[in-house]
Amino acid sequence: MPKHPRKTREGRVAPLAVASHSRVSKAVVSRLSLYLRELQHVAREGRDTISSSELGQRLGCTDAQVRKDLANFGQFGQRGVGYRCRDLIEATRRILGTHEDWSVALVGVGNLGRALLGYRGFTRQGFRFVAAFDADRSKVGLQVEGIRVHSLDDLPTIARDHKIRLGVIAVPASAAQEVADRMVAAGIEGILNFAPVTISLPAAVSQVGVDVAIELEQLAFSVLRRSAS
Amino acid sequence: MPKHPRKTREGRVAPLAVASHSRVSKAVVSRLSLYLRELQHVAREGRDTISSSELGQRLGCTDAQVRKDLANFGQFGQRGVGYRCRDLIEATRRILGTHEDWSVALVGVGNLGRALLGYRGFTRQGFRFVAAFDADRSKVGLQVEGIRVHSLDDLPTIARDHKIRLGVIAVPASAAQEVADRMVAAGIEGILNFAPVTISLPAAVSQVGVDVAIELEQLAFSVLRRSAS
Repeated sequence: MPKHPRKTREGRVAPLAVASHSRVSKAVVSRLSLYLRELQHVAREGRDTISSSELGQRLGCTDAQVRKDLANFGQFGQRGVGYRCRDLIEATRRILGTHEDWSVALVGVGNLGRALLGYRGFTRQGFRFVAAFDADRSKVGLQVEGIRVHSLDDLPTIARDHKIRLGVIAVPASAAQEVADRMVAAGIEGILNFAPVTISLPAAVSQVGVDVAIELEQLAFSVLRRSAS
Repeated sequence: MPKHPRKTREGRVAPLAVASHSRVSKAVVSRLSLYLRELQHVAREGRDTISSSELGQRLGCTDAQVRKDLANFGQFGQRGVGYRCRDLIEATRRILGTHEDWSVALVGVGNLGRALLGYRGFTRQGFRFVAAFDADRSKVGLQVEGIRVHSLDDLPTIARDHKIRLGVIAVPASAAQEVADRMVAAGIEGILNFAPVTISLPAAVSQVGVDVAIELEQLAFSVLRRSAS
């Protein structure tokens, strides 16, 4: 992973890499992912450039917000031309760290696990499931969406052999903490947790939780708030 | 939906309802969902009370944070006793608006759609899928996880008959905007969008987007930031 600005092919200084902007807020990084997704849509439509105002408009924010967010990471775009999609996609992926592929392990091959293994959007964003795991012995050995299901006991070996740094938990709440502990013991550095429970992890391990019921709750609250105002 | 404080069985004044706290931040409301989830875990373990410090600890925040968040909505808990789980669960659900069931429509019966229809966590939190929809005529008429799949053309009638206020989009990115437009036309007030694209909605309609690839991106960024620091 590049830790210092480096020259690009054209000789320009590339945007600063991760080590240099550790104080950027979560909200900015999260919008960066949205910019990237939108840029990819625009590029797939065959377009070369986009203005900050169009990018903002597509995401429901102002052009000033777009420019301010991106300014945290370097200088992009050109007055009167806008951003060159390809360049900004590459830069954004380098900032997010997804310009190189990440190997990912999934634990829990139920309905949700299967849906995640089959989701092509991961590959496009630089994530590759290299192995799945399940506590249910009858699933071990199966191929699901082209991914082999292994016993959880094999996690440490497989994680080491495939340099797996990220793990996805798609097991019931009652099993999530144990799975997380095993992932940590296997050297996994970041966990995406779909189980509806808060897991405790050592400070050195990152986690993101996605609870679909909570997302619906937040939506319901927002609907009520609107209809009450 | 109660818009004014009302007396509970014990004669205490119940916490304020939605209309009264429309300036509470998103972060607070989002933590409220986490408190509720944790309280439900604790209650299922058979416990009657929990202290603010234990609640905070289970979620990785301080007891002061817990008390401050809850103080936005009323007075809860008792010095030396803590919170009575059942009371706080009921109050939290009333604040979030999930003390009464919400009828939900799902559009897109692919892998993810099936996983969502089968997810029991929704019911527990007060959400009930009453109908599923798919553009693929070969799926119309199927029962998936006990839910009937309908043609999208029937959305307006079914939404009206079942008082459906929330919709879940689980279709590919290319179809998401059209589905959203049809949901809005059918009177749906809030949309949970799993398609990896930003949809535009009238200001009166709420939306929450969940893009699992973006969640992984945010996780990767956080892992890199840690390993660089």
